[in-house]
Amino acid sequence: MGMQRTPLLMSRLIERGAALAPEADIVTATADGTRRQSLRETVERAHRLAHGLRDAGVGIGDRVGVFMWNGARHLEAYFAIAGMGAVLHNLNIRLGGRDLEYVINHAESRLLIVDADLLPRLAPLAGRLPSVEAVVVAAEEGFENWSTALPAATDYEDFLAPWPTRFEWPLMEEPAPLGLCYTSGTTGHPKGVEYEHRSQYLHTIAMCLTDAMGLSATDTVCGAVPMFHVMGWGFPWAALMLGCRQVMPHRFTDPERLGRLLADEGVTLAAGVPTVWQGLRTACLERPNRFDLSRLSRIVSGGSAVPASLARWYWDTLGVEMIQEWGMTETSPLATFSRRIPRPGKGDSRVAPDAYLEEVGKAGQALPGLEVEIFDEWHRPLPHDGEAMGDVLVRGPWVCSEYYRVPLPDRFRGDWLVTGDVGRIDERECLVLADRAKDLVRSGGEWISSVDLENHIVALPGIVQACVVAQPHPKWDERPVALVVLEEAATVRLAEVRTHCLKRFARWQLPDDVLVVESIPLTATGKMDKKTVRADLEAAGYRLPELR
Amino acid sequence: MGMQRTPLLMSRLIERGAALAPEADIVTATADGTRRQSLRETVERAHRLAHGLRDAGVGIGDRVGVFMWNGARHLEAYFAIAGMGAVLHNLNIRLGGRDLEYVINHAESRLLIVDADLLPRLAPLAGRLPSVEAVVVAAEEGFENWSTALPAATDYEDFLAPWPTRFEWPLMEEPAPLGLCYTSGTTGHPKGVEYEHRSQYLHTIAMCLTDAMGLSATDTVCGAVPMFHVMGWGFPWAALMLGCRQVMPHRFTDPERLGRLLADEGVTLAAGVPTVWQGLRTACLERPNRFDLSRLSRIVSGGSAVPASLARWYWDTLGVEMIQEWGMTETSPLATFSRRIPRPGKGDSRVAPDAYLEEVGKAGQALPGLEVEIFDEWHRPLPHDGEAMGDVLVRGPWVCSEYYRVPLPDRFRGDWLVTGDVGRIDERECLVLADRAKDLVRSGGEWISSVDLENHIVALPGIVQACVVAQPHPKWDERPVALVVLEEAATVRLAEVRTHCLKRFARWQLPDDVLVVESIPLTATGKMDKKTVRADLEAAGYRLPELR
Repeated sequence: MGMQRTPLLMSRLIERGAALAPEADIVTATADGTRRQSLRETVERAHRLAHGLRDAGVGIGDRVGVFMWNGARHLEAYFAIAGMGAVLHNLNIRLGGRDLEYVINHAESRLLIVDADLLPRLAPLAGRLPSVEAVVVAAEEGFENWSTALPAATDYEDFLAPWPTRFEWPLMEEPAPLGLCYTSGTTGHPKGVEYEHRSQYLHTIAMCLTDAMGLSATDTVCGAVPMFHVMGWGFPWAALMLGCRQVMPHRFTDPERLGRLLADEGVTLAAGVPTVWQGLRTACLERPNRFDLSRLSRIVSGGSAVPASLARWYWDTLGVEMIQEWGMTETSPLATFSRRIPRPGKGDSRVAPDAYLEEVGKAGQALPGLEVEIFDEWHRPLPHDGEAMGDVLVRGPWVCSEYYRVPLPDRFRGDWLVTGDVGRIDERECLVLADRAKDLVRSGGEWISSVDLENHIVALPGIVQACVVAQPHPKWDERPVALVVLEEAATVRLAEVRTHCLKRFARWQLPDDVLVVESIPLTATGKMDKKTVRADLEAAGYRLPELR
Repeated sequence: MGMQRTPLLMSRLIERGAALAPEADIVTATADGTRRQSLRETVERAHRLAHGLRDAGVGIGDRVGVFMWNGARHLEAYFAIAGMGAVLHNLNIRLGGRDLEYVINHAESRLLIVDADLLPRLAPLAGRLPSVEAVVVAAEEGFENWSTALPAATDYEDFLAPWPTRFEWPLMEEPAPLGLCYTSGTTGHPKGVEYEHRSQYLHTIAMCLTDAMGLSATDTVCGAVPMFHVMGWGFPWAALMLGCRQVMPHRFTDPERLGRLLADEGVTLAAGVPTVWQGLRTACLERPNRFDLSRLSRIVSGGSAVPASLARWYWDTLGVEMIQEWGMTETSPLATFSRRIPRPGKGDSRVAPDAYLEEVGKAGQALPGLEVEIFDEWHRPLPHDGEAMGDVLVRGPWVCSEYYRVPLPDRFRGDWLVTGDVGRIDERECLVLADRAKDLVRSGGEWISSVDLENHIVALPGIVQACVVAQPHPKWDERPVALVVLEEAATVRLAEVRTHCLKRFARWQLPDDVLVVESIPLTATGKMDKKTVRADLEAAGYRLPELR
């Protein structure tokens, strides 16, 4: 034994930033502006929260459900629960009541921390959560007079008040559980994935690599991705470790408020799903120059594919680099990053926009330590030639090995996780996703990628969003149909879309129909809910044009 | 168990870069230019080397001594030995024969890989290395007709030739040993530090953080630090992981050749001890504009303190950012980095030169996961106020917990390593080193930092190098004396040095004498050898001016 056996615990990382940059702001949006506290205060409050939780009976390994917007108190909950060795059970506030009840009971969470404005969403669950012993309610301005039928409810500030600002974080084994997230399953119950100290520690370090997103202490970070989505993509931990300024939108997630927040706080790096950036673009287009986004340098986008037209707009209009990440609840979540821009500096010049846009359309290269591979149906690895398409499997130290208290052996092959995605890997080891396996359109024995079509269609002027789904066809099995959301006063014709698609796709790949809709239904994590789209079309008795 | 139990083995990292950038050059300097091979070839040759080593009887955990300059074959040895689970025992080619014999025998290395031009240095050891069963000799151009009395010698290329380009790296436990380095001990025998897969894995990832040195796949890296110094400061591993171009000076380490190599190969990041950068500066000053260093953006300097005047020259003249790192054999070696420059980019502007120069004079902030602390003589932690000075102790996952086969309990306090350095920690957690504990000058009950004086004196025009050591004084205990190396035709007077030092130091801290010398003796790792300086002064009967 030559080297120290220091366990990889999150408590070793999250204290670091506050020591380096105690005065760094943690900014939370409020109804009429922002409120702010320093990183030092945040850490002290987190230590007090940990005391309160322990006093309430929360011990090592116990689940604490957190039902909150992004904000300073949510960050304190991350910090306290991780530090004390409890398990941060992030509750998606957009889950339906039945799913919410299921996940709290399945996780047997002992205590809930809830934003007061969200209490009404939990009201129907009163009396149905046998494991929950107490509720701590965080009241932002205007919500001080909250009430709830949930048991043993305490105000968050009262819960913290009696305690000292120093909690001795326990020493644990590094695979000790740290967090629990449930996937918004499209079939059956949500499935839980349990994160561990070791896995999140390694994930936190890796995401701060220069070739990932170049996150630095000098960044001001805004996670537009909710902190209840897969550990906020790791941003809360990484920013705590580095000592970044953090800016949190709380419940003010509309594009207007988000744009203003990014501008006013000088955010340099923001992260969120593509729909957020589509919304911000629309807001910018409606009133050009309304936001001064001159400090914003990078947007990390993930959760679904980034349309090239969106990346191009941010690059051309705002000079903002878009970085695509790919991952999922089961991969903690960050697995790959698309980034190949020489850092601007001496002797470097930014790569040509077209080369950059080609890169950002890919899911990218796996973070060091993680392996991504494509396999055919007989589990034979496929060549990395940018042509062969197969099931995407992944393994590594922050990839899940099982679901929480539910055996799902078909989601694993050997030590690989089956991601459910289908894609290619090119000569430079860049993963290029084709589609979710279940969203591919199978036409005449060939596969059509719904994602590729969507990303191409959405580049047409006047189209805000496009969603392509398969519809049954007696001869071809399935044919693609595009649903589109239009800008105000815009129109679109099928022939126009097909002509536009012919620039890139073969004739047999073109959509058979274009349906203008008001909006596309989204899943609880903000992705297009194609299962619901297909179900709605079926319920409406939709038939393909040539079958009518 | 929610997450996969993937062991942190170096074989998981080092294959990555070649997959991402198979065509990246590995450049080795030769007598009349360079030779180059691709990263793909390098990896294939490493796999063949591993086959050869296994065939020669090298198994998991066996030590392989490597006695080589920086070059492609040395990199192959790193790769093969790490991959196959053997132990890379780096031999410092500047060690004296007796120390060399000691470390090879103490490590019980079973096989040596030796650069042919270095064979004469091993000649005196023939017949004195009982554990060594075979020698593999790497012959660069001009050294093909090597001969040696060492046992079972084979040419490196013949050793590789029979084998396939794919070796199945074994699965091991992550604390499996990976490498072995001996410190060039100033007292007694050299002490060995054994690195493990886990510790080097974590070290490799951490050193690539943006806030460390921002190492990226887009960098062309030149380790002017020898690969026989503490795993080449981790650069070989990091560059393999990211897929960087690597440029290696081999035996051509003089400033002229190094400058030309950096220029010709468009190196963007170089690393080495301050004396290397002093040498390069002198070469540049002798003939301005001789090297086009416009691509060079960062120099990582470590091993001893960086004089502010040196950092200023590189910044002002070449626009090169100097990054100071601090660490030691016992810390794998990278522990802290001094870097606080906003990355040039949107909305950022470089900090003012003076602020930058103040930062680069500090050892810097600990890498995430590592703890650095200062203690008083009763092992009480001291405040981080930039004033309190104490013993620097360090702990974390890449800090050694014991020396190899030698108990040295006084080098540890609890789970802390006693570094032997003395310093302060400021409010932003930056470590500011005062001196090696044994090099401090104790005058009238107060301490004088020899390093601070040196770094100030060397800024005087005409002075190339300065070395301050204590000399005995009957009243004050010790008084500082400065030895200086001058530029050609330059002169210096004691009064001049003292006046210059008064700008920053109190009168009682000024050196009592200035001695002009031809050169300062260096240790095997290129640091000023103050033990020898003091011994030489004593042998020469040196007395302080007022005692003569």
